[in-house]
Amino acid sequence: MENFVFENPTRIIFGKDTHKVVGKEVKKYSDRILLHYGMGSIKKSGLYDRIIQSLKKEKIEFFELGGVKPNPGLDLTIKGSGICRKEGIDFILAAGGGSVIDSAKAIALNVPYKGGNMWDFVTGRAVPVTALPVGVILTIPASGSESSDAAVITNEDRMIKKGYHSDLIRPVFAILNPELAFTLPDQQLASGAADIMAHVMERYFTRTKNTDLTDRLCEAAMRTVMENAPLALKYRRDYNATAELMWAGNLAHNGLLSTGRTGDWGSHKIGHELSTCYGVPHGSSLSIVFPAWIKYVYNRDIDMFYKFSVRVFDVDPCFGTPEDVINKGIERLVSFYRKLGLPTSLGEIGAGKEKFEEMAEKATLYGPIGNYIRLEMQDVINIYNLAL
Amino acid sequence: MENFVFENPTRIIFGKDTHKVVGKEVKKYSDRILLHYGMGSIKKSGLYDRIIQSLKKEKIEFFELGGVKPNPGLDLTIKGSGICRKEGIDFILAAGGGSVIDSAKAIALNVPYKGGNMWDFVTGRAVPVTALPVGVILTIPASGSESSDAAVITNEDRMIKKGYHSDLIRPVFAILNPELAFTLPDQQLASGAADIMAHVMERYFTRTKNTDLTDRLCEAAMRTVMENAPLALKYRRDYNATAELMWAGNLAHNGLLSTGRTGDWGSHKIGHELSTCYGVPHGSSLSIVFPAWIKYVYNRDIDMFYKFSVRVFDVDPCFGTPEDVINKGIERLVSFYRKLGLPTSLGEIGAGKEKFEEMAEKATLYGPIGNYIRLEMQDVINIYNLAL
Repeated sequence: MENFVFENPTRIIFGKDTHKVVGKEVKKYSDRILLHYGMGSIKKSGLYDRIIQSLKKEKIEFFELGGVKPNPGLDLTIKGSGICRKEGIDFILAAGGGSVIDSAKAIALNVPYKGGNMWDFVTGRAVPVTALPVGVILTIPASGSESSDAAVITNEDRMIKKGYHSDLIRPVFAILNPELAFTLPDQQLASGAADIMAHVMERYFTRTKNTDLTDRLCEAAMRTVMENAPLALKYRRDYNATAELMWAGNLAHNGLLSTGRTGDWGSHKIGHELSTCYGVPHGSSLSIVFPAWIKYVYNRDIDMFYKFSVRVFDVDPCFGTPEDVINKGIERLVSFYRKLGLPTSLGEIGAGKEKFEEMAEKATLYGPIGNYIRLEMQDVINIYNLAL
Repeated sequence: MENFVFENPTRIIFGKDTHKVVGKEVKKYSDRILLHYGMGSIKKSGLYDRIIQSLKKEKIEFFELGGVKPNPGLDLTIKGSGICRKEGIDFILAAGGGSVIDSAKAIALNVPYKGGNMWDFVTGRAVPVTALPVGVILTIPASGSESSDAAVITNEDRMIKKGYHSDLIRPVFAILNPELAFTLPDQQLASGAADIMAHVMERYFTRTKNTDLTDRLCEAAMRTVMENAPLALKYRRDYNATAELMWAGNLAHNGLLSTGRTGDWGSHKIGHELSTCYGVPHGSSLSIVFPAWIKYVYNRDIDMFYKFSVRVFDVDPCFGTPEDVINKGIERLVSFYRKLGLPTSLGEIGAGKEKFEEMAEKATLYGPIGNYIRLEMQDVINIYNLAL
């Protein structure tokens, strides 16, 4: 086990009707906020009205910025910080999924930084000293951004999607009401489940030895997602299955499952390029990339991938050679994705080899990626080939 | 799953040599502190000197109060708050195990409360509005008090041991260096492991339905303890086994494993009376009580105890009837305790039936105990009988 510091102060308010307390929670921090959201689904679902009602009840003045798209862009966050500066806003309330939350975090970083915008932090040209507090009403079990230290932003000018990490941008509170996910399109729910699985797998696959407890916690999260995601998708108003998924999505990315171990994160970067080039949702990029990544790397640590197949996918440990066991595990991971209606090959999203070099170059722009094994540009191309 | 609020802001600093940063961590909060510890083991181990060195380096003025015994008493905490008030101390640093930390938390509650001491909070005569911040250097993987909201204090005048819960007393930081546990007496390490198991079992045994993720997280923690506690005890300088135990001890009691479910906690109360009457360490009281409690209650929810036996103790699900499977699980729980050298019957601590009524009466003084099933005085006597 490695030394670590773990600290996650986000206040999680979980369960039915919890969105009704949003005004009270915000009031602890601010009287003047930016309400940030996506393409209007919160208006259709009625959530918007209920938020406004709760804010007004607490006499909280609010300004609005909607329009966050999947793979949120830097430009909108600059617009958002302009509004905040002009109106003297000191709190961002994000209502939506990972894209909205990440966009809110970027605005929170932009506002007090006079030298430019948060892309300077992404590229390492500057280091933030403070950020506005962010609160969250979550509508999509997926990114875990509601209590994570991460924001993934796409710089439209450069067509680059990059993640940024800082304790400054952990939301101060996150309201998780599983009922809010009932009206999500199926495809978004499925994609979210793949994202959750990926967040755990990125942490699970490690070169760190002696990680018994966190191995088992990761396995607990993965099994929960595998059992509950298909149920939540089949019975769209199944509170319990959706709740399991939502809580797993949070724990998958709040830092706990990383304690004492170094995760990989190569597949996320390989997937980001698919999103940027082909506009595939984040989760679908991961359902394509992960099986290919495992095939490419498993022989570096047979024991770990064997454990993954046995403990997470219930492959009989005596099924065959360790490699047979691992391949059976990969097969079951692919089946899980298919059961959710997700793509597991590039062909399914209409992608061929044409952009492999371009994507691999971008993925490795700042050097080799992944910690489990360091992947150079050619490795990334090889993985794309395995995903054809 | 039940609605819940989860918030645990304690900063965990985990790993080798981490005790060296104590001065820096304290400095964030205070220049004038009370260093609180037990019966002198931190002096023998050299930890005391290293703490002083780190505090002096940061120019932190410190006063001292040692002498905390197992099952910490109210009197010493009143003495401690007297020192704090007299010297204008605004931070308590606890160096030790659960007893020292609980005592520190009680002092932290006493100091700003002018109306008396924290026993008023225990009995519900008053509600605290604030407490001093507490920091921890942990030496015993056991209580989880280092980031919990709980303190268990014994009122010597009344011979009553009671727990008190408040978010006000969660430590602001906790330094967990597994190496500090190498010099613990074997018996304390074993007792600590039983305490950790009990903290998880109290949460695991619930009447709440649809708790997939937290079930599995609990199982992860229990399996980790069962595998690593015997190793840590056999190889007393095995860093990895001790580290697994220490991290499990923390997660077992930081609130995470309770999310969305109502735990039982009856066994803890039944065990507290054994500690008060016979002076048995907390963990040993639990290794005696828990198997008896399970025998007494399992037929109320065969499925849950069947799952416990299969998933935690690897009992073959087809071993026999569900009751056979459960009994095999209890047998393996008892074996686990015995492997650690812990008592699993009252006879082993020299206790007979003579105090059953007295203990059962005290355990149920404030009403029936336990949430899984509510235990009246006679139920508690029956459980003591099963533990003979």
